[in-house]
Amino acid sequence: MRLAAFRRRTEPPGARHVGLVVDDGPTWRIHPFEPGTEMVSLLAADGATRAAAADTAARRDGIGARDLVLLPPVRPVAMRDFLTFEAHVDGMERGHGNPGPPQEWYEAPVFLFMAPHAATGPYDDIAMPPDTARLDFELEIAAVICRDVRNADAEQARAAIGGYCVMNDWSARDIQSREMKLKLGPSKGKDFATTIGPWIVTPDELDGCRDADGFLDLGMTVAVNGVRVGSDRSGHMGWSFEHLVAHASRASWVKAGEVLASGTCASGSLAESWGRNGVLEPPPLRVGDVVELSIDRLGTVRNEIVQSAEDVPPPVPPARRRARQES
Amino acid sequence: MRLAAFRRRTEPPGARHVGLVVDDGPTWRIHPFEPGTEMVSLLAADGATRAAAADTAARRDGIGARDLVLLPPVRPVAMRDFLTFEAHVDGMERGHGNPGPPQEWYEAPVFLFMAPHAATGPYDDIAMPPDTARLDFELEIAAVICRDVRNADAEQARAAIGGYCVMNDWSARDIQSREMKLKLGPSKGKDFATTIGPWIVTPDELDGCRDADGFLDLGMTVAVNGVRVGSDRSGHMGWSFEHLVAHASRASWVKAGEVLASGTCASGSLAESWGRNGVLEPPPLRVGDVVELSIDRLGTVRNEIVQSAEDVPPPVPPARRRARQES
Repeated sequence: MRLAAFRRRTEPPGARHVGLVVDDGPTWRIHPFEPGTEMVSLLAADGATRAAAADTAARRDGIGARDLVLLPPVRPVAMRDFLTFEAHVDGMERGHGNPGPPQEWYEAPVFLFMAPHAATGPYDDIAMPPDTARLDFELEIAAVICRDVRNADAEQARAAIGGYCVMNDWSARDIQSREMKLKLGPSKGKDFATTIGPWIVTPDELDGCRDADGFLDLGMTVAVNGVRVGSDRSGHMGWSFEHLVAHASRASWVKAGEVLASGTCASGSLAESWGRNGVLEPPPLRVGDVVELSIDRLGTVRNEIVQSAEDVPPPVPPARRRARQES
Repeated sequence: MRLAAFRRRTEPPGARHVGLVVDDGPTWRIHPFEPGTEMVSLLAADGATRAAAADTAARRDGIGARDLVLLPPVRPVAMRDFLTFEAHVDGMERGHGNPGPPQEWYEAPVFLFMAPHAATGPYDDIAMPPDTARLDFELEIAAVICRDVRNADAEQARAAIGGYCVMNDWSARDIQSREMKLKLGPSKGKDFATTIGPWIVTPDELDGCRDADGFLDLGMTVAVNGVRVGSDRSGHMGWSFEHLVAHASRASWVKAGEVLASGTCASGSLAESWGRNGVLEPPPLRVGDVVELSIDRLGTVRNEIVQSAEDVPPPVPPARRRARQES
């Protein structure tokens, strides 16, 4: 089942509904669920309950793409971004002059918490953030959590995943590089926008897409201005999403409404090419560029980079230096 | 005004009320606000409205410390931890064999997003997390955001801060070190517990505690098992909290209910001593240790390290290695 959050074009920006996606290709339509239906509750419902709700929705009139705005399918209560693609880490490390991933990468899946308020809709424009000359995309696959888990075993981890979607973790590489000199974060290098969508696909739709180890194995591609610039498969993740949930939940809560993402796949960002090639080729994103990320069965998110209409204040001053005195 | 979240000892764990803290020292009592009062709304209210609510609360019976459990004063919608104390960064960098903070530290305040679901009450026990032999504390001061801001100027940043509290960013240094080899996060090294409290002190109570540049200047101390092991002043932060809000909100949302923390002050962690001295002295925290963090005017949080009662599953397997194939 494919589940979307949307508002009608005639509604004000705060409106939000959940609907069933029907049909593939340009003729897809959305059939609204009962008013007040919450996405995370729908994902957590048992299959029969969800199917009954979908049957009712399908009998309502559908709304075509031109009459609605797709919203981020979930409003994340937290976002975790992992680093699970070995080839991406390899490329980035070479860009920093290192021979490849450090041994620690292989031992356990690392992640960072991301800005939860930066989630944007699947076709939203992305405003060029301030202070960057190196805007980049990141092609990722993400899982949406539908129930609270702590110390989850494999079965509980699987049951906690309500569905999957495409994610673009937009990154300002020059800001990110400065922040990573402090070996934490990054923060402002990534907090301006994270695209998720176009909708959430429930796990039962993907049962035929798992490899022998149970890893989801879906083709992933990215195109800039219609030209394919990268592709990989989700089966190249070092850990399955069930592993990621189990790891994150060890002695800690993973809560319903969280988004857990794979990290960038191989060739799923420009920075990886910059690292491998030593030059900014392909060039950083510019105003007017259109970036399309597609994952088999999950769909496509497509965003244009636009000039920012915001009045962003100047940076804060550098650190006030203080000799430390004993207190 | 000092505002606490609590439940009565006779109430089940899910109960939560907001109350006014009256009296200093061991005789402090909490006078409940109207049922349903939300902490963040109370912080966002104008001074006269809050004072009227407090007058009404003060006429109700107070509840003594032995009859209640203090809760995290806010349930964070996001937590950001900055790195604003130069001397702490200096000590940690020396521990990694570097001569001092990198130039990037001075240029802009970096931060990481932290586990928002890990906030624990001011006197809660802290369960020893799995897989660590280097448990540590971090003495920090935190601001609680009471209204949404984006591209905040200095005045808007100040108005967005609803109050301040003490924070202990508990850290498993061995796990954290491994994670930081990937230059992001850390995540599992810090996601098991973050103590905030004992309550929130509104900014008007601290007007007399600002230095000539407007920085809050409060004494901060940490004691382990009753022995003082570190102290500093919040005036040694490289940026004021207003700067931190302004920085975080540039082209991004900072939302009501967020917690923004200073990062560790100088001598506010054991790891800084380990870095400076080259030996694990004072030793990592052990079960039975009691850690007390105190900040002038804000109060004290006090936590005992206890054996975990959780059944934590084994770590997930190491990365599955996959030669990348073109898809």
